[in-house]
Amino acid sequence: MKNFVFYNPTKIVFGKDQTTNIGRYVYGTKCLLLYGKASIKQNGIYDKVVESLRKNTVGFVEKGGVQSNPVLGFVHEAIDLARAEKVDSILAVGGGSVIDTAKAIACGYYYEGDVWDFFTDKAAPGDALPLYVVLTLAATASEMNSGAVITNEKTKQKFNINAESLSPKVSILDPVNTFTVSKHYTAYGCVDAMVHLLEGYFTQDDPATPLQDGFVETLVRTLKDSTLAIMKQSDDYQARADFMWAATLALNGITTAGTGKHGFPNHMIGHSLSALYDLPHGASLSIVFPAWLNHYVRDKADKLAQFGNAIFGTSDPQKTIEALKQFFNIIGAPTHLSQVNIASSDIKKIAENAVMLAKKWGLHQYTEPVIEEVLNAGA
Amino acid sequence: MKNFVFYNPTKIVFGKDQTTNIGRYVYGTKCLLLYGKASIKQNGIYDKVVESLRKNTVGFVEKGGVQSNPVLGFVHEAIDLARAEKVDSILAVGGGSVIDTAKAIACGYYYEGDVWDFFTDKAAPGDALPLYVVLTLAATASEMNSGAVITNEKTKQKFNINAESLSPKVSILDPVNTFTVSKHYTAYGCVDAMVHLLEGYFTQDDPATPLQDGFVETLVRTLKDSTLAIMKQSDDYQARADFMWAATLALNGITTAGTGKHGFPNHMIGHSLSALYDLPHGASLSIVFPAWLNHYVRDKADKLAQFGNAIFGTSDPQKTIEALKQFFNIIGAPTHLSQVNIASSDIKKIAENAVMLAKKWGLHQYTEPVIEEVLNAGA
Repeated sequence: MKNFVFYNPTKIVFGKDQTTNIGRYVYGTKCLLLYGKASIKQNGIYDKVVESLRKNTVGFVEKGGVQSNPVLGFVHEAIDLARAEKVDSILAVGGGSVIDTAKAIACGYYYEGDVWDFFTDKAAPGDALPLYVVLTLAATASEMNSGAVITNEKTKQKFNINAESLSPKVSILDPVNTFTVSKHYTAYGCVDAMVHLLEGYFTQDDPATPLQDGFVETLVRTLKDSTLAIMKQSDDYQARADFMWAATLALNGITTAGTGKHGFPNHMIGHSLSALYDLPHGASLSIVFPAWLNHYVRDKADKLAQFGNAIFGTSDPQKTIEALKQFFNIIGAPTHLSQVNIASSDIKKIAENAVMLAKKWGLHQYTEPVIEEVLNAGA
Repeated sequence: MKNFVFYNPTKIVFGKDQTTNIGRYVYGTKCLLLYGKASIKQNGIYDKVVESLRKNTVGFVEKGGVQSNPVLGFVHEAIDLARAEKVDSILAVGGGSVIDTAKAIACGYYYEGDVWDFFTDKAAPGDALPLYVVLTLAATASEMNSGAVITNEKTKQKFNINAESLSPKVSILDPVNTFTVSKHYTAYGCVDAMVHLLEGYFTQDDPATPLQDGFVETLVRTLKDSTLAIMKQSDDYQARADFMWAATLALNGITTAGTGKHGFPNHMIGHSLSALYDLPHGASLSIVFPAWLNHYVRDKADKLAQFGNAIFGTSDPQKTIEALKQFFNIIGAPTHLSQVNIASSDIKKIAENAVMLAKKWGLHQYTEPVIEEVLNAGA
């Protein structure tokens, strides 16, 4: 096992009817209530949250309209609002896009320069407003980690930040809040969480990590089984609960503690697809990941055999990749660029964009030609 | 999945050569340096810790001599010392006994009455001194949870406390510090960690928890394999590291989050064996747990089959229990009262003692006759 530091101080309040407790946890007198689409006003989540804030005498100013693949322009606007209104906390009601936006606002609030400086490593996030979450879409694990991803819509860069001060203080995970998540977005969430787990599993430094491998395989199996159950019945509480908790644990640090350095090459390429075509994050990953496995099938043969045995009952690497693609297609996630109307002739352009992030993340083996080869391996 | 709150803010600093960093983490100007036997002075751990404290200008007053099955009298003495010396933190260098003693001192420090009041539920722990840990024996997970167990040597009660303020701030887990742990104590640590996992697994409310079951099975497998490797080679770093992290995760809350209520009936009975005969905690559990499984073999047949399949390659409940006993005996942990020179005629006396804890823990089905039946099922 490699040396590691594990620190995850987010309090998770998980379960049915927990949304109404959020006001008890929010610290301060006035929060920025942040959300995405108006759907939280239709499905009753907004009312529950607002009532709980009022009951606990927490004031708020609201800002809706966070979009998926959230953008920097919105973050700037929200920082201005938060400052003008002198809020002392942020409450994110939504999925990863809303939480990530909240994290950018939280640290941008105290920074005199452009918050984008944090994303380009010109400055490091310091103080941040305390952040609270009511999760409505399980996928990114942003509700229990210290990272955030924002797209600069002008430069077409989808970049990330990470800082201890960005961990939410409290996150409410009520599976009922995800009953209305569409099949497509459930599928994308499943892919996102699985690839979070498998990027580490397949790229980690340490070849012998039975404990961490067992955790990853358990979570992948849970995500697979619960997603299939949700596809049959959208309000299957047990399946939504298993899915929600598995997605959180998939990127809260527990599965990679001790595995050494690992890369996120599939996220690197996927982020470019989202930045260029506004493709949902999960859909970008279900296309890139099988292609990446194909490209590295000989390098990763042993781990693919282990993974295949644990999840699909086969130790054949190629059959394992096919089984994974088949699963993605069954749940409605694309596995080929053509399925999302991106021409193979764009691969060069995608690689040009992706290589910027490869450099930022230190994935130096991923030159433009290599990224092209990976994408072509899925063609 | 059942509703739960998960909150574990302990920072884990894991790995080779991390002991020398402890001084960087200890907050304050003067700590109570607490340890057990003089062995930390022989194996170099004491010197590393003291040098790190000095380098970071953290003063200290030391108190050694914590014994296994740590006692209340020692806690009282240490509270007096901590107050007289006006310490502002506690640094526990040791295993569960030292950490649990430190937790009792930490909350007793601020309490005007007898700290034992917390153990008998006459009062609840409030403020506590911040606690830091350098772990030298992997077993109890006290380094990453908020509980502690102390024996009142006068009343022969081994009772526990639990409070958020008792979670260590930082715990250093350096597997090298466990190279000199004897085979016997390694075996007892293995049994303790396994039974922490399996008490929940076999007694939990929720019958369908694939995620949590997978985590438990992974950790039990890791403990089994790493213990067998350590028995062959005491300084096998990989095995000591796997063992150490698995033992911590076995009782840090992650495996029981979402499983609902569960009991610790084997700890309840085991604590009596320790209180009455000063038997090592792990040795008490390796005797009680197979007996308990035998007693409930029909009730627990399905879960035993699942467990047997996951760990021992058999779905036969009785064969699974036998395989577990065989494993305990191979690593040198007793599975019968006679192996630790306790006469079967003492079973009534043990049950009389155990029932006190059964009442405290709300295990109301464990009357004296039932506890006797459980112990007799191991005879």
